[in-house]
Amino acid sequence: MLGRTYEGQNCSAARTLELVGERWTLLILRDVLLRDIKTFSEFLAGLGIARNVLSARLDHLVREDVLRRRPYGGHADHYEYLPTDKAADLLPVILALTAWGDRWAAPQGPPALFRHSSCGGAVEQKLECAECGELADPREVVAVPGPGRQGTM
Amino acid sequence: MLGRTYEGQNCSAARTLELVGERWTLLILRDVLLRDIKTFSEFLAGLGIARNVLSARLDHLVREDVLRRRPYGGHADHYEYLPTDKAADLLPVILALTAWGDRWAAPQGPPALFRHSSCGGAVEQKLECAECGELADPREVVAVPGPGRQGTM
Repeated sequence: MLGRTYEGQNCSAARTLELVGERWTLLILRDVLLRDIKTFSEFLAGLGIARNVLSARLDHLVREDVLRRRPYGGHADHYEYLPTDKAADLLPVILALTAWGDRWAAPQGPPALFRHSSCGGAVEQKLECAECGELADPREVVAVPGPGRQGTM
Repeated sequence: MLGRTYEGQNCSAARTLELVGERWTLLILRDVLLRDIKTFSEFLAGLGIARNVLSARLDHLVREDVLRRRPYGGHADHYEYLPTDKAADLLPVILALTAWGDRWAAPQGPPALFRHSSCGGAVEQKLECAECGELADPREVVAVPGPGRQGTM
């Protein structure tokens, strides 16, 4: 677990990584958001992870309001886990991590491709400049202090 | 350090997280890519991190060809660290992590804003469908097996 690694760093990227960087959490979110996986046993089967670890991760994501848990199938102790808006907003993180891995760490080609559910088209992540409209090359991006800056960016 | 957590998972996002999720690596990359920080002493001052940890992280990033090291200022043991293409390609990861943190974990507002260096416009990350051209809502994205799929996506 990455834990609260970056205390003292006022950085939104670091704060997100404190959640997503926790071991297995990313793959749980991938399964929920992209593979329609919902129940404890489905996660368990897909991830090959210890039950107690999976249980701790799911509990943490529910506490953080990233997943919501609801009873399932009429059993008192059966639940399914559904993504909240906080989870859906993590999809761009998964897409960005995937694009890099596909380019630099996937010699066999991309293990998965992303499609638009309504038309089947390839989904791409682009950088856009709100001013000139052009796609900004990563090297053309600079950071400036924002309203929440205190100390380090 | 997250380490090689996800062996057995054929997932590009997990592979990228093995690099980026390593403690402090993300903040080093942020400093290199967005704050023009280059030397050991600049990293040290900005991050408040132990010298041996910083040294290990920089060495690892050089080994992974994410940073390149070159002599600096005519001293035999002074180096500066410059981003490679592999590093520049990580900017979308930083932007995606930042967008989520700004929205969900920055009660004081964004600590940093991203601008297009040539015109000063706000840089935004968008999802685009190559087929219908529309911006896909995160909930409209599905994953399908790609050419590199073996076992688990």
